[in-house]
Parts: sequence; structure tokens; C-alpha cells
Amino acid sequence: MSSFSGEILKVATFGESHGPAVGVVVEGAPAGITLERAAIQAELDRRRPGTTPLASARQEADQVEILSGVAEGRTLGSPIALLVRNTDARSKDYSALADKFRPGHADYTFWQKYGLPPQPGGGRSSGRETVGRVAAGAVARAMLEPLGVELAAYTIQVGPVKAEAIDLAFAREHPLRAADPNQAEAMVAEVMAARAAGDSVGGALELVITGAPAGLGDPVFGKLDARLGGAMFSIGAVKGVEIGDGFAVAARRGSANNDQMDAEGFLSNHSGGILGGISNGMPLVLRLAIKPTPSISQTQRTQNLAGEAVEISITGRHDPCLCGRIAPVAEAMAALVLADAWLMQKAQARSET
Amino acid sequence: MSSFSGEILKVATFGESHGPAVGVVVEGAPAGITLERAAIQAELDRRRPGTTPLASARQEADQVEILSGVAEGRTLGSPIALLVRNTDARSKDYSALADKFRPGHADYTFWQKYGLPPQPGGGRSSGRETVGRVAAGAVARAMLEPLGVELAAYTIQVGPVKAEAIDLAFAREHPLRAADPNQAEAMVAEVMAARAAGDSVGGALELVITGAPAGLGDPVFGKLDARLGGAMFSIGAVKGVEIGDGFAVAARRGSANNDQMDAEGFLSNHSGGILGGISNGMPLVLRLAIKPTPSISQTQRTQNLAGEAVEISITGRHDPCLCGRIAPVAEAMAALVLADAWLMQKAQARSET
Amino acid sequence: MSSFSGEILKVATFGESHGPAVGVVVEGAPAGITLERAAIQAELDRRRPGTTPLASARQEADQVEILSGVAEGRTLGSPIALLVRNTDARSKDYSALADKFRPGHADYTFWQKYGLPPQPGGGRSSGRETVGRVAAGAVARAMLEPLGVELAAYTIQVGPVKAEAIDLAFAREHPLRAADPNQAEAMVAEVMAARAAGDSVGGALELVITGAPAGLGDPVFGKLDARLGGAMFSIGAVKGVEIGDGFAVAARRGSANNDQMDAEGFLSNHSGGILGGISNGMPLVLRLAIKPTPSISQTQRTQNLAGEAVEISITGRHDPCLCGRIAPVAEAMAALVLADAWLMQKAQARSET
Amino acid sequence: MSSFSGEILKVATFGESHGPAVGVVVEGAPAGITLERAAIQAELDRRRPGTTPLASARQEADQVEILSGVAEGRTLGSPIALLVRNTDARSKDYSALADKFRPGHADYTFWQKYGLPPQPGGGRSSGRETVGRVAAGAVARAMLEPLGVELAAYTIQVGPVKAEAIDLAFAREHPLRAADPNQAEAMVAEVMAARAAGDSVGGALELVITGAPAGLGDPVFGKLDARLGGAMFSIGAVKGVEIGDGFAVAARRGSANNDQMDAEGFLSNHSGGILGGISNGMPLVLRLAIKPTPSISQTQRTQNLAGEAVEISITGRHDPCLCGRIAPVAEAMAALVLADAWLMQKAQARSET
Repeated sequence: MSSFSGEILKVATFGESHGPAVGVVVEGAPAGITLERAAIQAELDRRRPGTTPLASARQEADQVEILSGVAEGRTLGSPIALLVRNTDARSKDYSALADKFRPGHADYTFWQKYGLPPQPGGGRSSGRETVGRVAAGAVARAMLEPLGVELAAYTIQVGPVKAEAIDLAFAREHPLRAADPNQAEAMVAEVMAARAAGDSVGGALELVITGAPAGLGDPVFGKLDARLGGAMFSIGAVKGVEIGDGFAVAARRGSANNDQMDAEGFLSNHSGGILGGISNGMPLVLRLAIKPTPSISQTQRTQNLAGEAVEISITGRHDPCLCGRIAPVAEAMAALVLADAWLMQKAQARSET
Repeated sequence: MSSFSGEILKVATFGESHGPAVGVVVEGAPAGITLERAAIQAELDRRRPGTTPLASARQEADQVEILSGVAEGRTLGSPIALLVRNTDARSKDYSALADKFRPGHADYTFWQKYGLPPQPGGGRSSGRETVGRVAAGAVARAMLEPLGVELAAYTIQVGPVKAEAIDLAFAREHPLRAADPNQAEAMVAEVMAARAAGDSVGGALELVITGAPAGLGDPVFGKLDARLGGAMFSIGAVKGVEIGDGFAVAARRGSANNDQMDAEGFLSNHSGGILGGISNGMPLVLRLAIKPTPSISQTQRTQNLAGEAVEISITGRHDPCLCGRIAPVAEAMAALVLADAWLMQKAQARSET
Repeated sequence: MSSFSGEILKVATFGESHGPAVGVVVEGAPAGITLERAAIQAELDRRRPGTTPLASARQEADQVEILSGVAEGRTLGSPIALLVRNTDARSKDYSALADKFRPGHADYTFWQKYGLPPQPGGGRSSGRETVGRVAAGAVARAMLEPLGVELAAYTIQVGPVKAEAIDLAFAREHPLRAADPNQAEAMVAEVMAARAAGDSVGGALELVITGAPAGLGDPVFGKLDARLGGAMFSIGAVKGVEIGDGFAVAARRGSANNDQMDAEGFLSNHSGGILGGISNGMPLVLRLAIKPTPSISQTQRTQNLAGEAVEISITGRHDPCLCGRIAPVAEAMAALVLADAWLMQKAQARSET
Repeated sequence: MSSFSGEILKVATFGESHGPAVGVVVEGAPAGITLERAAIQAELDRRRPGTTPLASARQEADQVEILSGVAEGRTLGSPIALLVRNTDARSKDYSALADKFRPGHADYTFWQKYGLPPQPGGGRSSGRETVGRVAAGAVARAMLEPLGVELAAYTIQVGPVKAEAIDLAFAREHPLRAADPNQAEAMVAEVMAARAAGDSVGGALELVITGAPAGLGDPVFGKLDARLGGAMFSIGAVKGVEIGDGFAVAARRGSANNDQMDAEGFLSNHSGGILGGISNGMPLVLRLAIKPTPSISQTQRTQNLAGEAVEISITGRHDPCLCGRIAPVAEAMAALVLADAWLMQKAQARSET
């Protein structure tokens, strides 16, 4: 389904890449939350492709309209509907592709599932769908802000180049969200080299969330890591998720991996802030593997709708590296998961009555 | 919540580690599926700790009783309730721990969330809870069997020792589910060494699913990878999940990562069988990072309920490496996700009417 | 929540009475369903207030825009977003009311729940919210049409005047949806008399659904009658629901109430087409009690926000009898329930695999 | 589905009439609620058939076992599993029926839906399934008790005999839950006369809930009346539901139907305690139409599995009037709806953070 179905918070996004609009309906946000249109717009602006050669040339103003659920800067408790018109969809860019499955794309699987030929711009499987996620994430952030929760995703790897330090302020302004000022140039060079070769390049993101209270999440199926991990994998191009120390734990002994405590609290954070599926008050730490953009202009082998072997070269407007684009989406998805867990914790908290 | 809430298949497990019983209710399985008690028991037997020093000494017969939903070896379409009595719970093993938070466990977070002191045997956060998952997974397997779906999880890493080859038949019988006959002895040695040191050791599993038809899963939030990834992270001790080539894609270019096609089909499977959130008919491939068992007898630093710094040494019955125990649980969770996606696909399939 | 959450079909409506727009997102409709904008518009046109004195004077064109999920007259399998702009909201009509609870309205309960003063036009509790329901219902009708399902709601009582015969074609065109051509004039006279007295009048609807196959619905909590009944009570002003013979069964013996069969099928339909929560192939029959419009211009006693006793006279634009307005909404809700049950039945149907 | 799926509270019942057991898993109840086994048993005892000729002769001890979720008389926040063994199932009573559809029963629709022949004792469609509901209702009552919520269902009509007064204490002890001491004897006589004639008789219940705070329920689809109404229709044999004045409003004008207020509060309760789908703090009032028990010994016409016209006479153990049996079930369902709405209100309540 297209909906993010939290325990309490429900988010239904809609819109095709080359349809008239994209948007989202958010349900379950309490009444009285401060929510300004400008705050939503700011998140959408962070998500927009820039004007650098690092990004798709598709230019969308992405101006959000609040259709319902907010009055005078406060939520009403009713569904919040947010709309963004598509204005720069160029379906003709895709006309040559209409009967070939683009490698690494959903074209083949949509054909198998729905019997639909490749849709202009990828339809629902386009990254344009994430407009709705980021807009909904802005609502979730508004819910979390009074708790002091802060979320930051940044790029720690592009191709072979890895960050060795993290500068949140730098990353936030950098077109690739590069975390390390000293490696940022090398990351950009990787992207430009791939682009020059008619190719693309993968990378990795780290997501750190501070200020989340202990007690969020549930045991068993509703673990906070299960919800966060599932939410991250719902973002296109994500092929791996680590929580805390991730795959490094495989080589480790328990005595080195357990987070011990003293009277002040935890002495380490190997767990990434989650124990038994429930937040422990330490920073939540995740890492995401981002595959290289599948749309490349190099000639590739594929099938057409008739099942014949054909060649394809994809020449639309595409980001040669997705890390910078996905960073705000990862933050949005994490914000939704946390806002939902916080609502659930309010419901379950022992009451005095 | 404690329920696995698929689109159609709903699974509610219940039971505390040291309570009278554990079990599960499975809803949404169609009527007429062949389901013998013996098939469920066989899965539970695979999950049971063995009698080797590699495993917890807790001995449970884990005999399953079918309480409802099945008659004469076939499902009735009604809820399937499965019950397993606990018989070997030794709460006294835990009495010394009752006011200290075990490092790496849910004790601290349960205290923060519920106001409950550490529960005997870990309560719901114990691995014993997975009896219900494995029993439910057997129901899902019964649904998938006529489709030809096969699921196999096996250990590819224990501490520093990695598998270099995969022998499914060997893994299925090995107490650690070790995949590589040539490395199995070294893996066992790692576990025994950790145990001798009053310690534990981590590892990694791979899960491969063959026979799943193309078209399972949904775009956007309900991606098959999102559902599988979330389900894997719902298993205790899982700290990382990869789908297909996972984190290796970060260093790669698109031309090397895309799975191209010829007239016969896909020429590679970097994607791990999922494109745009929907299965493409290739094997589904996942890898899981398993943290070292947190319960170790070495002395560790922690807090007690009063917030004071104390020391703790945990001497209950615990598996020094969790890989072998988690393998059947991972298969069960994947089976549930796939059976649900298959039901959903039946609902959505274009009808002739 | 604002969403209709079927087993598979999910419907999220949005929009305040005096906000910029109302609309709906429908998820779960299969790909390939024929769905023309005109068909949705036709249902919305049936819902619109007419230009007679029987109806509210608020005039909205209610032109629907399809924002997503449909291309070339067929569903894509993705979320269907439908938007209707509000154009004739006159909030000033309500300014005098802003600190008084209108009797029979949600003003008092919204204040208790959300801490919100009475909203212009009633906000989400306005009948204007039903635009989204009717638009969604048109999608459900498109799903049901190939099955031969037909839905008709008509007015069988207005104040003391009761229908003695049913003429579906007549009802469909009548502004009150009056079922009996011989009683229609008397019904209109009741409404006009109430209106002249600064008052309103109640009534009753009957809803008959033909062509629904046997086997829809589930035992226990998901009974088809539970889903239909709940859906009907979700419509504002509905205070009673009967299925089949309804309250008449209280005075009856089993021998008179059971629907016996011969080789041709059922010999009667006291059950209203549902046995054990599952459709039996006979027409589904429901009746709804509709309360008199609470907005009346007669002076009434109430409280203001300060809890003081005050008087109120409500002079906005209101329908003096709601039966005609609710008829298409009742059809829409029933269509949603049935379309969802049909999808679920497809999922559960015994497969040959 | 077999689950009651509240916004937060989830209830999965299981068990066939003639299977080994019936029971329920309740999720979402907060930790720390006082819940004694005796309180659950007391509700089950109220539900049990008595030893009078007014009731089925099937005798079940219905001793409940708490399998999980409770320790030392308090909820743990984990799933609460409750089990009742079946001991007096006499499937042979049904052997003669196995190929005929009992009129008024689910046999025909189960056959259409599942392809299953009539199940011994009715399988899941038996009233025995309500053991799980009543046990779950006891959990919900435990949640509501600290709020001061009280629920009482009582019989106001049996065949033509109607209650003219209500004595809650009398009703609670009466085998038919007859509300009016002066009419109770006449009600019993109606049942005995029907039974003597190999027949059964219908009736009506009223359900009154006091102490529920204002603010429970949601606008639009999640109205408290929609949830209560749907829950009531999920009880077998319920053919009509009224809220507040129900069908009487059809004949009424708005000026007579609106509940006006003075400074003390509401001056009447025509609405039955719900405005705009949200509780207003007045007593919640519902009425249910109960159909005559379909199992009667009089000869009836029906079909067999081959579609041939046959005769049937049903001689198992059945209650000749269901009102007394359904009263505690109606209370249980209402308790579940209210407990869920209360949890949701806690989640949504404006927080100070």
C-alpha cells in the first residue's frame, strides 16, 4: 500500500511523477501543534534538486499548499492535506523508453504486477513521490520539536570516498550533504567523473537522532528498530540498513559490544540507542547503503515488452548520485516513525486515573 | 504492538519467558490449506536449543497444540491458535538479577517504558517469544509451499570466521547452521572459546528465498524490501540488514550495479530479487548482522533500579552465539511477509469480471 | 480517525467546510479498473444541494479533479487522489456563533476533545466532508459495476409521512429521494412546513443492494453487517440502523423469521441478505433513521465557551431535511464496504495452486 | 477478520464451538492495570448458560486460564492471552445435520465462502465464540473502572412483552436479564411457550453506559457511534441498533430533538450521549434488536449440499431466546470500544510539552 501506517499516525501519499500533482494526507496529529506553511516549505526546499551539475535538471518550484487540517498556524486535529503541483514534467523525454524495461528500475516489476508498461517518469516509483514524504515529515518534526528531538542525515560515503569527520552544519548546506569538509571535494569529483562517463555512483548515509526520550517503541514486532529499519527500506535505492554498530557486531564479542552503565548512564552506544526494541535515551544512529542511480546514459542490455533482447540508453534528467536527495527523505521517514511512537507512548503511559 | 500486521495476514504472539505458555494466533490464512501438526512441530524442533554446549541448557519439549482453525489437516479459514507450554522455566536463576539492568538487554528500556523491574527470563523480550513466530511461520510456509517457495537461512560469519562456500543441506543439520563445511569447525571453535571466556560472540546470517513469483510487494511504503527489512529488524539481536548486494553498492557505479537482461531474463542479481519494492522472480537475498548474546558471565558495570552504579555477572542458561537460533526465526518472518504479499497480490490481481 | 480502513481498501478524506478544498485519497483499488472522471462527477452532482427551497442555498460547483491514480480512463493501482475546491464558503454567516455551542451539533464535543471553539461551517463535522465519501464511493462503484452490483437509497419516511410503495426511478430524480410518488408531495409539504416554522424534520432511508455475490464478509468481528452498520453510523445524523427486518424481529418467533429454502433458493429475505455475517446472494436491505437537521432558526437554549447559559438562533444555509442529501452518501459508504469485502474475498478464495 | 481492531486495542479471538478450546489475545492494554483472574471469571460466569429451562443445556465450566500478560494481579503491557477449554461439545448432536443448511444459520454462507460443509456446533459462527469477547471485555472493564465507567445491558422486550420500567439490580440477576420486575414473568412465559412449540422468540436489549468522559471518539469514519454500532452488529443475531432515540427521530422536528443546554449542562439526552461522533459526557444509550434463535425443532424447508430441497428439524441444545445470553456480550463489546477510544484520547490529548 502507499500509506505509512503507524500505530496512530497514518500517512497517505499520492501522485505520479508526470501527473498533475503530488501530495499527502497526514492523520493522527493532535490538535494544537504549531505548524506553519513556511516550515513545510523549508523541508521541501531542502529536498529540491539544486541547480548544480550534481543534480537532475528537472526544475520544480514545489510550492506546497495546505488544503486542510491547519488554521492560524495550528493543527486542528483533523487530516492535514498538503498539495504540490507538478509543473516541469517532460513526458516526451520518456517516449523512446515506453516499451523497454530500464535496468535497475521498477519497470519490469510494475509490468509483472499491474500489467502496466513503463510509466512516464516512473509514475509512483519515481523519486518525485518523496515530496509527499518530506511534507509529512515536516508535520512529524513539528510534533517532535517541543520534545527537543533533532534529526540529521548526511553523506558518509560516495563511491570509494569515505568521510572521516562529521560537520553537521557543513553537511546541511552541501549539495551532496557531504559530512566531511575535507572529503567533500573528492566526493563531488566522484560524482562528476561518473556523470562524465554516462554513469552514476552509489554511497552511504548516516542518520543521527538526538533528544528522543527513552521508552519509545514496543517489544516483539513493533520494535523501534523494526519500524525505523522498515521505513528506511521503503525509500527507493536503499539496499542496506545498520542500527548502531551494524555489521561490525558480527566480528565482536559480547563483552566488547554491550553498552555498560555507571551512575551517569551509558558508557558507550554500540546499540545505536535501542535496547529490546525500545529507545534508551542515547542518540539513535542508523546508516543506509544507497545504490547508484539506475538511470545512466551508457548502453545497457534489457528486454522490451515483447520479451525480446534490446539495448537501452537513458537520457532523461537524473541525479548521478542519490545521497544528497535521499538525506532529507531519510530524516522525514525517521521523524514519522518517532512521532508515531511518541503518540503511542502517550496512549500507553500509565495514567493516574 | 506484539502483532505482525500484514496487509491481510495478522499474527499475534503471546507469552512470557517464565509464564505458563507461549503461542500465537494467525488470522487471514485461506480455508483449505494443507496444515498438519507435524509440519508445525518440525519447525519448532528446528528452533529448539540442541543438547550441545553451543546452546542454552534450557530444555523445553516445545510440543505444539493446535487449538483452533484446523480440522482434518486443513485450515478452516478461521484463526489458527497454536499453544506451547513452558515447562523448564527457572525463575530462581534470575532472582539475583531482579534489581539490576543487564547490559545489552531490554531491562533498562522496559523499566523506562513500563515501570517494570527486570522480568524473570526477560519476559516478552526473551528469545522464547520466537516460538510463536516460528509456529506462525510454519503456517505461512504451508501457504507458500504450493507456489514452490523455499526459504533457507544459514550462518555465514561467526566472529572473524567467514563462510567461503554454501552447502544448504549441511547448514540445515549443523547446530550453528554453519553454511560452509570447511569453516564450520572454526566457527564452533570461536563459540567455544567465547564461552570458555565467560563471553559470547556475534555473527551473520544469509537468507535466500527461491520460487517467489514476480509481482509481490507494493511501491512506496509497502515495498517488499521494507516489509522484509522491518521483519528482520523485529528479531532481537539483528543490528543490520542487507538486501541483495547491500553496503557493497555504496562503492559501485550504476553500470556495474544494474541487473541487465537478455531474452532469457536477468543476467545478474545485485538487487537481491526486488526492483522498486516488487519481487522480480529472481532469488530474494538478505543478510543479517547478529549481535553477540548480551548475557555473559564476565563482570560488567551497570545500574540498579535506584540508579546506582553496580556490577553484574549473568549466570543463567544462554546461547553463546545466536546465529543458529535465529536462522529458523528469520525464515519464519520472511515466510510471513511473503505469504501476506501473495494474499495481497491475489486481492489486487486484475480479475476477468 | 478520518480514514475508512477496510481490510484492503483505505479511504482518507480531508477538508474543512470553510477551508480551501475537500477531497479524498483511495488506496487499494486494483489496476485496470475503468474509471472516468465523468462517473465521479455524476455521483458528486447527485450529492449537490439542488436549487429548490428544500435544500441549503450554499452553491458549490463541486467539480472534481483527478490528481493521481488514473490514466487514460483506467486505474493504475496507485492511490487515487480526488480534489474538489470550496468556492462558496461564507464564514461570516457563522461569526455570530463563534462562542456558542449549537444544540445537536459537534461544537460542544469538539471543544471537549480538541479545545477548539466552534469552527466556521462546522469544520470536519460539516456535511461538506461527505464530498470525499461520495467521490470515493464512485471509485468503489467502478469496482463493483462489472460484478453487477447496484445500490439504491431512497426516502421512506419524512416526519410522520411514510412511503407505501417504492419507485426507484422516481426516487432517483426527486429532490428528497422520495420513494413513493403518491407520498412525495406530502413529504415535501412536511419539509416546507418545518422550514416555515424555523424548524427542521427527520426521516428514514432504505438502502437496497442487488447483485452482490454470496460469500462476502467474515465471521465474528468482520461481519458484513458489522461493516455496513458501522459505515452507516459513520454518517452524521444517522441514529438507527436496521438490517433486514430490523427491530420487527424482536416480536417474532424463529419459525416466522428464518428464511427457509427450496431447490431454487431462499423463500424469503427477513435476514436482509446476510447470514452469520456473510452475504447469501439475496438483496442486502438496510434502513437508516435520520435525525432532523440540528441547525434551526428557532431560539434555543445553550452554553457559550464560558459555560454560561445563553440563547442561540442559527441562520446559516441549511437543508431542513437531510434525507435527500444522505441518500447518495449511504450508497457510497455501502459501495466502499462491498468493494473492500470483494477484494478480501479474492485474497481468501481457495486457489488452485 | 476475527480480530476486533481498535485504533490501539487489538483483540483476536479464536476457537471453534466443538474444537479443544476458545480464547482471546488482547493487545494494547497499558502496563500496571489491576486485573485479577477472578474478575475475568466473574464475567464469564455471567455469560454462561444457566441451569434453567430458559437456556441451552450445554454445560461448560468455562474456567479461564491467564496464559500471559499479567503478573501479580497487574498487566505487564504485553499481550494478554486467555484460554477456556471446551469440555461438553457433543458433535454427535450435529451429525444428522452435516449435509443440510440450517435456516437462519451461517451454514449456507460458510459453504459459499469457504467450501466447508456445516461444522459441528457451527464452528466459528457459534455463540461459543463469545467466550473470547467476554474475557476480552473484562480486560477492557478493568481499564475503564478507574474512570468510573459502568455498563449495563438488559432485556426490554421478549416477543410482544415490553419492559415498562428498569431495575438494573433485578436485571443483573434474572436469567433473561429482564429489566422490569413486573414484566419478567410474562417474558419468561413467552420463552417457555415458544420452547414448548419447538420454536424460539426474539427480543430487544438496551445498553446504558454511564461515567464515560466527554471527548471520546473521532469525527468522520471513527465516530464513537460508528464504532459502537459496528461492534453491536458484530454480535450474532443483532438485526438493528439504535443510538439515543433511534428511529423515533424520523418522525420528529429539530426543535424537539436537539438537546438544549443550560449552565448546568444538557437538558435532555435524545442523542444518546454522542454529538458529531464524540461523547458529550451524558449516558451512552443503545438498543439492539435480537432475532429469534434460528435453531428450532419444528420442521423447516432447506437445501442440502447437493442443492436439493430437504426438510430439517434441529434438536441440539439451544437457548430459545438469546437476549439473556447476549447482554454480557454487548457490554463486553461496548467496553472494548470505549477502552480503545480512551487510549486514543490519551494519545491525542494536547500535551504541555
